[in-house]
Amino acid sequence: MSDPRLLTVRPEPSQYAWTFGGAPPLARIQPGTVLDLYTEDCFAGKVRSEKDLVSQVCEFPFLNPQTGPFHVVGAEPGDTVAVHFVSIEPARDWAASTTVPLFGALTSTHATASLQPPLPERVWIWQLDRARRTAQFSARDSDLQIELPLDPMHGTVGVAPANLEVRSALVPDAHGGNMDTPEMRAGVTCYLGVNVDGALLSLGDGHARQGEGETCGVAVECAMHTVVIVELLKNVATPWPRIESDTHIISTGSARPLEDAFRISQLDLVQWLVRDYGFSDLDAYQFATQTVQAPLANVCDTNYTCVAKLRKEWLPVRETHRGLHARLRKTAAALIGSTPPGTATSDPAQHTPGHAERHEI
Amino acid sequence: MSDPRLLTVRPEPSQYAWTFGGAPPLARIQPGTVLDLYTEDCFAGKVRSEKDLVSQVCEFPFLNPQTGPFHVVGAEPGDTVAVHFVSIEPARDWAASTTVPLFGALTSTHATASLQPPLPERVWIWQLDRARRTAQFSARDSDLQIELPLDPMHGTVGVAPANLEVRSALVPDAHGGNMDTPEMRAGVTCYLGVNVDGALLSLGDGHARQGEGETCGVAVECAMHTVVIVELLKNVATPWPRIESDTHIISTGSARPLEDAFRISQLDLVQWLVRDYGFSDLDAYQFATQTVQAPLANVCDTNYTCVAKLRKEWLPVRETHRGLHARLRKTAAALIGSTPPGTATSDPAQHTPGHAERHEI
Amino acid sequence: MSDPRLLTVRPEPSQYAWTFGGAPPLARIQPGTVLDLYTEDCFAGKVRSEKDLVSQVCEFPFLNPQTGPFHVVGAEPGDTVAVHFVSIEPARDWAASTTVPLFGALTSTHATASLQPPLPERVWIWQLDRARRTAQFSARDSDLQIELPLDPMHGTVGVAPANLEVRSALVPDAHGGNMDTPEMRAGVTCYLGVNVDGALLSLGDGHARQGEGETCGVAVECAMHTVVIVELLKNVATPWPRIESDTHIISTGSARPLEDAFRISQLDLVQWLVRDYGFSDLDAYQFATQTVQAPLANVCDTNYTCVAKLRKEWLPVRETHRGLHARLRKTAAALIGSTPPGTATSDPAQHTPGHAERHEI
Amino acid sequence: MSDPRLLTVRPEPSQYAWTFGGAPPLARIQPGTVLDLYTEDCFAGKVRSEKDLVSQVCEFPFLNPQTGPFHVVGAEPGDTVAVHFVSIEPARDWAASTTVPLFGALTSTHATASLQPPLPERVWIWQLDRARRTAQFSARDSDLQIELPLDPMHGTVGVAPANLEVRSALVPDAHGGNMDTPEMRAGVTCYLGVNVDGALLSLGDGHARQGEGETCGVAVECAMHTVVIVELLKNVATPWPRIESDTHIISTGSARPLEDAFRISQLDLVQWLVRDYGFSDLDAYQFATQTVQAPLANVCDTNYTCVAKLRKEWLPVRETHRGLHARLRKTAAALIGSTPPGTATSDPAQHTPGHAERHEI
Repeated sequence: MSDPRLLTVRPEPSQYAWTFGGAPPLARIQPGTVLDLYTEDCFAGKVRSEKDLVSQVCEFPFLNPQTGPFHVVGAEPGDTVAVHFVSIEPARDWAASTTVPLFGALTSTHATASLQPPLPERVWIWQLDRARRTAQFSARDSDLQIELPLDPMHGTVGVAPANLEVRSALVPDAHGGNMDTPEMRAGVTCYLGVNVDGALLSLGDGHARQGEGETCGVAVECAMHTVVIVELLKNVATPWPRIESDTHIISTGSARPLEDAFRISQLDLVQWLVRDYGFSDLDAYQFATQTVQAPLANVCDTNYTCVAKLRKEWLPVRETHRGLHARLRKTAAALIGSTPPGTATSDPAQHTPGHAERHEI
Repeated sequence: MSDPRLLTVRPEPSQYAWTFGGAPPLARIQPGTVLDLYTEDCFAGKVRSEKDLVSQVCEFPFLNPQTGPFHVVGAEPGDTVAVHFVSIEPARDWAASTTVPLFGALTSTHATASLQPPLPERVWIWQLDRARRTAQFSARDSDLQIELPLDPMHGTVGVAPANLEVRSALVPDAHGGNMDTPEMRAGVTCYLGVNVDGALLSLGDGHARQGEGETCGVAVECAMHTVVIVELLKNVATPWPRIESDTHIISTGSARPLEDAFRISQLDLVQWLVRDYGFSDLDAYQFATQTVQAPLANVCDTNYTCVAKLRKEWLPVRETHRGLHARLRKTAAALIGSTPPGTATSDPAQHTPGHAERHEI
Repeated sequence: MSDPRLLTVRPEPSQYAWTFGGAPPLARIQPGTVLDLYTEDCFAGKVRSEKDLVSQVCEFPFLNPQTGPFHVVGAEPGDTVAVHFVSIEPARDWAASTTVPLFGALTSTHATASLQPPLPERVWIWQLDRARRTAQFSARDSDLQIELPLDPMHGTVGVAPANLEVRSALVPDAHGGNMDTPEMRAGVTCYLGVNVDGALLSLGDGHARQGEGETCGVAVECAMHTVVIVELLKNVATPWPRIESDTHIISTGSARPLEDAFRISQLDLVQWLVRDYGFSDLDAYQFATQTVQAPLANVCDTNYTCVAKLRKEWLPVRETHRGLHARLRKTAAALIGSTPPGTATSDPAQHTPGHAERHEI
Repeated sequence: MSDPRLLTVRPEPSQYAWTFGGAPPLARIQPGTVLDLYTEDCFAGKVRSEKDLVSQVCEFPFLNPQTGPFHVVGAEPGDTVAVHFVSIEPARDWAASTTVPLFGALTSTHATASLQPPLPERVWIWQLDRARRTAQFSARDSDLQIELPLDPMHGTVGVAPANLEVRSALVPDAHGGNMDTPEMRAGVTCYLGVNVDGALLSLGDGHARQGEGETCGVAVECAMHTVVIVELLKNVATPWPRIESDTHIISTGSARPLEDAFRISQLDLVQWLVRDYGFSDLDAYQFATQTVQAPLANVCDTNYTCVAKLRKEWLPVRETHRGLHARLRKTAAALIGSTPPGTATSDPAQHTPGHAERHEI
């Protein structure tokens, strides 16, 4: 007998969404549902060797496939959807990264337009050792090989945007989307403001690891088996995506130029301190100035993303977001302890992509 | 008998420099000299209570007083001056931070001009406990008090700029200057490209601690007792300031908009990997993309500053900057172990500001 | 008997579109159709006196109502739709402008976020004298009154965007949209690249006049009677909107930061010179550098817009865009000369808003 | 007998200044002095044929030679120096433009850093016909030749900066400098705020003509014979350079990103309307929004420059800057009518570069 609150989704190729908003829901889920998801990589799985150039094998706009969207029953504008990442596990023993013509931070682009020719197009295939938790870089122009820690994350998680808009899955903005922050790893809770009935949550773009800023525009891209718990906070507004970990509260901002992404994330953090931790505006501004960490997320996407992190241990002991993160951590621990859906499963054969089992209450 | 290579400097108020370039050298020093310095805070020591508003007690442009400049004997354009931070210790048991009208990231400014009135001007006095290594935040609008770790650093270190220019000590650029990065702490070596004969090195703007981005524009500002070792790398060009710690190599970039500061720092890191670690351009671009940390330094100054950090443990074992950092660490350890100039001295009475002893070979 | 190629549209309030893309076509039209349109102002007509504050009378996202969209029969991705503005005439004898909280160039905004309170919200009602072709500014804080020339234009004209997206009518981008350039006046032809079958053209946001940059974010907003001729250029790609007048070729770019909008528009102009006027890349770069006019369009919208204008008299005599502009000018002259639809009609009573007559071949 | 208020300056090569601030005065002049100047082109005259690549024949930082600086007797911080351009005449019958590696708007640069190689380096020699007032473009890659109107201007005019700084002559900022706006043509008066005693005014960087934005970074660069009248407005502060013509008042702003240059120029114009034309802040904001012209000046220099222009005919009849412009126009007319110093002289042989005659009261 299946748990009515567990939904396993292995999308068919035709089932992915390519936008936030505008795609019909893949399923309706109750708050509290555990989603056991397969997500395809940003290339829709089409870059599989060093010969697979994005400009040849990928078809725009069919990049960054989203698993979802999920209609969260009861979610309305003015509410917040919480996505707790129980586990994010590479679904393959390799991952790919590439240069993409006129995309990335160290090249002219379609917006930062120049008369220079694009950089050469190149593919790097990374070998993943899921048992040892490593990803191996193999240089293309020398025999240099370097083993790095796996640090799996999702580049993309979001809901349908406001203002009747539909945005490409490549875009990060107030609705979340392609924020590409390494902070979106297992163990955190992501809070997303709801803009349309049902929220229409989806996620994708798994990275085996990524540096801050995603300089060349492409991380160590990998299909993932990911387990999340989706919850709903009624009547809590979240203007910009927030993340909570056991150790930090984290605000995000996505905009251009990059200083605006910084400003948005910092103002959101200040307002978080004011709303939930008892600071006045100016005291919060002062306190954050001396305590915040501000690692870049991406400086390559349609909007750039910056995060503002603050250690919980430095904050007054107060409850934020109704204490949801702590509760979800316990639920996740129970899940992993008993029948870990996805977490402990390193054999991709045990996952059967290609059909979506739907168990709904 | 004094060590001929140790120079202790306690500037008179009239001896500070307010610019990079344009100020006569305070002393000529040989490469290898240990400087035991007193640096005044960015307010020139004039903000001493909550009543001391910057707009009333400070006189522009007499902000960010620099201890120096030091003429490094033999330094010529095309060389690199290395500044190893042996110790950075608060010289007082308090520090100050403020809002400054039309300055900071969460306000309009003289450049990001608006018709809105400035934010209220306010001062926070932080109590420092140098024994326990803490700095205490005291809210102005509530009775909130929070103890944070000391993490002393210098906001400003630099040399005379290129192109015949003289820049305010408030400006960060290719010559270093007011970069305001928390990475500039004890234990690191800062590499600065030489633009004029003698380099004309100076430093100041000590912070008891600072968040990344220096959001309100002002850190926990504090006079410092700082010991540095100054070395010279002949015929090594350093286009943008670099920092080396025991664990990381770190590039910086300072520009507006912020994405340009990011681009400069990332390109410099890529070029560092190419020059010293055996990567091709594109392999370095790929490798850095997946490994770099990109914390913001300041998003408030004339130029914004971004740093690009990479863990040494992930790099091929190669020598960079002629192995200087490791040697300076040893020298510093010997200094601290035997007659620690400044490091172990927590009693400010033992320091006698107000005169500059000069011992030169 | 009505001309089968003339379509008069007076939308019901419920018939406006609020997005580019995502709205069902209001009508299907053949290439060559003359559209005689009524467009409502950006406030959806809700700001009618100095007491009607946007934050009180307008409902987001129901701003910038679009008349359309029109499905252009035969238009496919890779083609270009041409919109020739025959006439743009104020439909009322007054127009409105306002400040909008946290919107505009001389205020912090939701993206250029600050802790400052917004500017005061205020409305200016402008009196239009359509016979004398003037718009009268009446100061709110003094008795200053200044008469200015009418210079009617459309802030918004565009097609459905690429990449499966739906964008708010407030956004300018590669699909056109809310570019807010005073160049979009009667007599010009606007070229828009087609992204979806039928193009889905719409327009709105009439301005009785506007300065360059639309500094406060709101022009002299006015409902309009506008006549356009819609044509189709098969197999002509137009990556960014272009405008052609009798005297100038004009490229546009919309992006943030503003220098990227400049870069896009300038590169497009260079590529125009290369494609149609016989220049090499570098010669075009040099020639444009010495001849281009670069007036700002808007520095307030989601993306900023810059235009790049070049006098035709300075160019080699060549045909661009298949000579379409000259042909449309003749057609327009014939229209105005015989039965001027909208142009000569200054009495709004002669227009009957509220129903859409559709005459299609 | 020479007019004691006329000073003719033909600098020796060694007499040029390369900075604003930091250079000793070339002469002391009384307010009211007419300066008859020779200015060398931005290449210091070293690019004379298509074979003279900037990277080979020019020596950084010896670019943009300044004729001056002139110590204006009596000028003190808080005052304004007015520079009325009586005439700007090409001193040669040719001019040069080039691409410069990693400089310009349609290329990556040292700040907008990329891994792409620079664009090819190329020189265009323009033939000037001073009698017919034309400049002829000759394509390098085809036989295209196009005759354009001469429109001589100075890219650079400025005073010593504030804050003890010395800036390269390539930099535009609040002190003026390398603003590169085509508005700086004969007939206008430029107002510059004084930062140091004597102001230390200089000018250079003549352009036979230039488009708005100076896209490739280099205009039609030409040595000039230029006559200016220098006046002093005591106790008038001018935070950013302003220009007044017979028809317009013009504010400037120089900053990065470009939107900040826009904001500065627009806010300055609003404040001008408030100070001199009887508007309240918000009324001025509204009025400027509907009337301002905002052509770009440069989008290539260290700071980008934007201007904000407003037609005088649309303003209340009031006196600005003490009516100085009108008086200077009359003085200039008298000068040109009687013994036109420089204006009517088209034969460069009549000018004797190489010595500075100084006639001072």
